[in-house]
Amino acid sequence: MSRFRVAVHIVPRRGLLDPQGKAVTDALRTLGFPAVRDVHVGRHVVVEMDAADSTAAERSTRDMCQKLLANPIIEDFEIASVSTL
Amino acid sequence: MSRFRVAVHIVPRRGLLDPQGKAVTDALRTLGFPAVRDVHVGRHVVVEMDAADSTAAERSTRDMCQKLLANPIIEDFEIASVSTL
Repeated sequence: MSRFRVAVHIVPRRGLLDPQGKAVTDALRTLGFPAVRDVHVGRHVVVEMDAADSTAAERSTRDMCQKLLANPIIEDFEIASVSTL
Repeated sequence: MSRFRVAVHIVPRRGLLDPQGKAVTDALRTLGFPAVRDVHVGRHVVVEMDAADSTAAERSTRDMCQKLLANPIIEDFEIASVSTL
C-alpha cells in the first residue's frame, strides 16, 4: 500500500446553462477586464488515499466521482493527475 | 490578439480549517471508501480571453484572481495551464 494524491476536475457539462460562470464573466468585464470572453467555474477536488498502485487509486477515485463527488446529470469529471505522496 | 484558455486552481490555504473537505472525507469513508485519508475541495476556474500572448493572458488572470476570483485571506491560487484556442 502506498499513499496517492489524485486531483479531479468537476465541471458543468458543455451546453448546459452555467449561471455562475456567466456572473463571473460579467463581474470581470465590469471590473476592468473587457477581454474576458467566457468563464466556467467547476470544482477542483484533491483526494489523498491509500492504494496498491496508481491504477487502483485512479479507478477508486472514478468510482467516488460517480457515487458522490460529481452530479452526472449536470457535471462532467476528469482525473487531472495522480501522484505518489 | 489571440484567444487563450487559462485554467486556475483555487484551494483553501494549508493549515486553515476545511470543513467541506472534512465532510467529503467522512462521507466517502461511510460510502465504502475507507482508504481515503484526506480530501480538499477547491475551485477550478477556466477563463477564456483575448490577449497579445500567453504571458499577457497569464498575468491578466493572476490579476483577476487577486481582485475577484480568489479570497486571499483563506485561499491560494495557482495557474494550472494556459492554452491557445
